[in-house]
Amino acid sequence: MTERKNSPDCRKYLVTGFSGFVSRNYIEYLGLRNSEAEIMGIDLREPDIRFDQYRKLIIKFQRIDLRDREKLCKVVYDFKPDYILHLASFSSVAGSWNNPCNSFQNNVNIFLNLLEVVRAIGSNCRIICVGSSEEYGNVKISDLPLSEDKIPNPTSPFGIARLSQEMLAKLYVEVYDLDIILTRSFNHIGAGQDEKFAVSSFAKQLVELLQERKNEFLVAGDVTIIRDFIDVRDVVKAYYQLFREGKKGEVYNICSGYGISLQNIIEIMSNKLKLDITIKEDRSLRRPKDNPVIIGSNRKIKSDIQWNNEIPLEESLNDVLNYYLIKNEYSAKGKSTHI
Amino acid sequence: MTERKNSPDCRKYLVTGFSGFVSRNYIEYLGLRNSEAEIMGIDLREPDIRFDQYRKLIIKFQRIDLRDREKLCKVVYDFKPDYILHLASFSSVAGSWNNPCNSFQNNVNIFLNLLEVVRAIGSNCRIICVGSSEEYGNVKISDLPLSEDKIPNPTSPFGIARLSQEMLAKLYVEVYDLDIILTRSFNHIGAGQDEKFAVSSFAKQLVELLQERKNEFLVAGDVTIIRDFIDVRDVVKAYYQLFREGKKGEVYNICSGYGISLQNIIEIMSNKLKLDITIKEDRSLRRPKDNPVIIGSNRKIKSDIQWNNEIPLEESLNDVLNYYLIKNEYSAKGKSTHI
Repeated sequence: MTERKNSPDCRKYLVTGFSGFVSRNYIEYLGLRNSEAEIMGIDLREPDIRFDQYRKLIIKFQRIDLRDREKLCKVVYDFKPDYILHLASFSSVAGSWNNPCNSFQNNVNIFLNLLEVVRAIGSNCRIICVGSSEEYGNVKISDLPLSEDKIPNPTSPFGIARLSQEMLAKLYVEVYDLDIILTRSFNHIGAGQDEKFAVSSFAKQLVELLQERKNEFLVAGDVTIIRDFIDVRDVVKAYYQLFREGKKGEVYNICSGYGISLQNIIEIMSNKLKLDITIKEDRSLRRPKDNPVIIGSNRKIKSDIQWNNEIPLEESLNDVLNYYLIKNEYSAKGKSTHI
Repeated sequence: MTERKNSPDCRKYLVTGFSGFVSRNYIEYLGLRNSEAEIMGIDLREPDIRFDQYRKLIIKFQRIDLRDREKLCKVVYDFKPDYILHLASFSSVAGSWNNPCNSFQNNVNIFLNLLEVVRAIGSNCRIICVGSSEEYGNVKISDLPLSEDKIPNPTSPFGIARLSQEMLAKLYVEVYDLDIILTRSFNHIGAGQDEKFAVSSFAKQLVELLQERKNEFLVAGDVTIIRDFIDVRDVVKAYYQLFREGKKGEVYNICSGYGISLQNIIEIMSNKLKLDITIKEDRSLRRPKDNPVIIGSNRKIKSDIQWNNEIPLEESLNDVLNYYLIKNEYSAKGKSTHI
């Protein structure tokens, strides 16, 4: 990783879940806006990309299991972050049904470990505790769009774990005066997201249908559910600004404010590729219980900080498709099919 | 442990946290009412008492860590319980402030493990998921006495862990049709309870003051807090009856319906012993955040099942004091001071 001297204006970030999708986008955001920053990334696995092109970023990495309090304590103590962006999470709702214990272990328990370390050290760093729209759970249509004061009623082990994490964070703000900002981040969309997430899976399948005719059908779970998708670049921009302007102990929805069904997303993407596809439902992809509609209100975050969601869904979907078109091009040279 | 053949009417109980205070009282309740039952107790440590006097109880014990899914699965599969009384818990509120990770690990995670095992095996046993009045957290005076539909707002890591456990239990009832009854059990009182709990600690100190003048003062945390105390024998009677008549997926307060301050409890007990004592506050015993008043309503449980809280507080306090008077008599022979 890059080794350079930092200036007094340089901000120090500790980023957990450093090798993941959101972290990569955060670092790129810092790089593109030419921010001066020193970043200590921690994760269970090495990151698979480098950020050498961003000359003002000093990036270090340590492989740490967040359950290992001693190592975590050492890195927080030594690095002395101004900000902790806590992205590490077992973030799959479907996965939380398959392994709920894991979901609790890797959401609540690791977060508690982090808070206990910050408290023990007496660090006054600002922490972003990333929560999820899944905390809302089953909601009435009349409650849409969901504002932060709606009482959560989660309907998945993941949603319950995230809500527990949020309750703990609020308690640590109140009791120990830790400087924590809480988010309920809605469904992310973006190039390079793991294929276990719906939109990436759809895009990948569609590109394969186009280029290789690998599948005759697009396989999906319940495509009638409506979600509020937001581009990951808008999400990380919100995190950046929340570190600067967010109010301690407050919960912020990070969302677009618009709902769209998965079916509609598939239609938009298949139209872009001029594909006439059939959706085949794989019932094993259905969750034991799911929320038919989740749409958030972003009024609070827009009034408290300088932030706006700027990337339209069409553009996000283009980018996700292009990601797979380019990726497949590399593996099957010569077929140029950018949108 | 006792080894006898069981009859077809015999009910089979799996009891977690078998070596603890509530479990002992549950077994004694079964014994005293002459119930025929086969009990498989599991715990991390061996129980320190035997129940040989109850001829109709067949009791077995296995030392199992509830985090060990494989062993847990084997015992549930082999034993085939009709009922699971899940008492295992890291149940100290104060302890949850000192070690919140442990509190989550030993409330939520072990409970999830148990549910996953029951689900995997396809057992249709009835489970009692013991929750706590601590789930209510900070409440308005106008909300007292607390009924089960009051929205919880826990103010300790323990309370949050218990609420998470309750949310998970409800989800497993709804999604997997598991047969779970949920309780919010209020402050227990009874002979033999661990001295980390307030009333036991007070009783022990008072008896020592009386017999050995070991301490000049009674040391306590915040004695102004008001709690709803219920005799452990009334609690276990409720569990017994909930197995038979409780409604699946419902939450039941188990409480007396009356509130009393810790200060008042100390006064009652010191009057009984004719002691004129001074309370010395140890601020380290104060919790970072505490609820000034918790009083429950037991209307729902009384209307749904045949149960009544029958043991008056005075009698419970007598019993706790006698426990220490007798215990100290054994260690300092000859001084008979029963109340």
